[in-house]
Amino acid sequence: MPVLIPGPASSSLTQRLAELSGFMKAKINYKVFPDGESYIRIEEPLKGETAIVIQSCPPPQDKRVMELLQLIDASLRAGASKVIAVVPYLAYSRQDKVFLDYEALSSKIIANAIEAIGAHAFITVNVHSEIVLSYFKIKALSVDAFPEIASYLSSLDFKNPLILSPDRKRYPEAQRVAKILNGEAAFLEKKRDLTTGDIVTEERTLNVEDRDVIIVDDIISTGGTIVNAAKIVSKGKPKRIIAACIHGLYAANALEKLMAAGVNEVLSTDTIETKTSKISVAKVLLESIKQLMEG
Amino acid sequence: MPVLIPGPASSSLTQRLAELSGFMKAKINYKVFPDGESYIRIEEPLKGETAIVIQSCPPPQDKRVMELLQLIDASLRAGASKVIAVVPYLAYSRQDKVFLDYEALSSKIIANAIEAIGAHAFITVNVHSEIVLSYFKIKALSVDAFPEIASYLSSLDFKNPLILSPDRKRYPEAQRVAKILNGEAAFLEKKRDLTTGDIVTEERTLNVEDRDVIIVDDIISTGGTIVNAAKIVSKGKPKRIIAACIHGLYAANALEKLMAAGVNEVLSTDTIETKTSKISVAKVLLESIKQLMEG
Repeated sequence: MPVLIPGPASSSLTQRLAELSGFMKAKINYKVFPDGESYIRIEEPLKGETAIVIQSCPPPQDKRVMELLQLIDASLRAGASKVIAVVPYLAYSRQDKVFLDYEALSSKIIANAIEAIGAHAFITVNVHSEIVLSYFKIKALSVDAFPEIASYLSSLDFKNPLILSPDRKRYPEAQRVAKILNGEAAFLEKKRDLTTGDIVTEERTLNVEDRDVIIVDDIISTGGTIVNAAKIVSKGKPKRIIAACIHGLYAANALEKLMAAGVNEVLSTDTIETKTSKISVAKVLLESIKQLMEG
Repeated sequence: MPVLIPGPASSSLTQRLAELSGFMKAKINYKVFPDGESYIRIEEPLKGETAIVIQSCPPPQDKRVMELLQLIDASLRAGASKVIAVVPYLAYSRQDKVFLDYEALSSKIIANAIEAIGAHAFITVNVHSEIVLSYFKIKALSVDAFPEIASYLSSLDFKNPLILSPDRKRYPEAQRVAKILNGEAAFLEKKRDLTTGDIVTEERTLNVEDRDVIIVDDIISTGGTIVNAAKIVSKGKPKRIIAACIHGLYAANALEKLMAAGVNEVLSTDTIETKTSKISVAKVLLESIKQLMEG
């Protein structure tokens, strides 16, 4: 029977996975020394079992990555026959290409390090770009948690909701969510101002008066994209604005900025464990883990 | 001609190396995104040259390690034929063994990662334990900077100094420094209290009245070892107490604690760049780099 190894950044998600799967959860000893170095020890032998390491990598990303590598290493030292590295939020995946000559290809560095320490397979959730998966030589896959978001939203009482993608690129996801919710989907167009680096969203008149508007995106980082969308939506006098995302990163006071821009509620999944992470990815992750172990 | 690649944690040391060697220093673009991810770009091609990446890894260690990996990766993308990773202070080297079953062997993780990204050789300064070097498959060596400390101290005006090792294990280093300074060497015995984890130093009567006492150690982390030694030395009414180390880490307000314990001055090398790092390791590093390139 596989054993779950709870990373310090994913203790709640690991607990949910344990309850859902019946898999044992290993005891780990985790501490940070006074100088800032992380220490990880697995407190029981794994005796040839498959170790499923669950460790997300939101800020502080570099520390979370180091702990992930320590968890993989400790699992192997404890006798695991195989290590599946489950990284619900994968840091550095936005540096998925060399955009300018001689940039470090950070997402490939992370992939190489995970492999070098000895992971046998890799699972993440809604990776920013599929290219990142190609940097792994081991089996690597990305699980889609948008159906979990749709399913959670459908349990709430929305009337005639508008599911809005703040970026044309993510419109297919908004359409899928809309389908499950029996709602309408729409999108806005965003562009990056090449001089200032700021995100600019084109104005559009949306038919949102007295309707619930659900803005869906894969990630909320500094929140700039959703703030722009919420400001445009607000002009149409909606009933409520809800922002729902897979990865709630909330850098640079993003939550406060969203509220100030008129967002009434923010929802996210537990790929990153915060006060907004009411939607669990445990079920979709477990399906994927089981497939990987069988296949 | 080799090119120096200045890591964000070693900009002054790289500058000293450039002045001493005449090697070119590459321009790098370094930034941290709002979410905390690091970005590194080398702004010029390296055209088949040997890249000498200089990046120390003091706190925040995990970020410094990630930047180190990015510098190695970017150097290779810029066309370097070979990368020498110079890591003046190597993080995680105190986890040099598995002390308890199923601990992560963190120093080996760091070595594996540096190799996986493609470094061809590795140089550090006064590594905590030689075992760590054995975790590298590439050529790996540790440079001794105690002669630099001795040389710096000999330029100061000491009369009949006592060179004190706060730990019997480091007594040979104290003896070597004492020889260069024409001084006497002594040591204290320290033990770790296995219950509390605290460092306990055995009381000893030292003949230090009206003498300069120079406590030398490889690293000052939280400063506990030096604080203990300084308290014992103080009882003998010394003229001055100077603490000199290779790696001045100064975790948990160590400098303030040292001053409170009676230390008059703290000196360190620029393996970690701080206000105490008045002694440069540039010369010994350059000798080692040149030997490595010739051999």
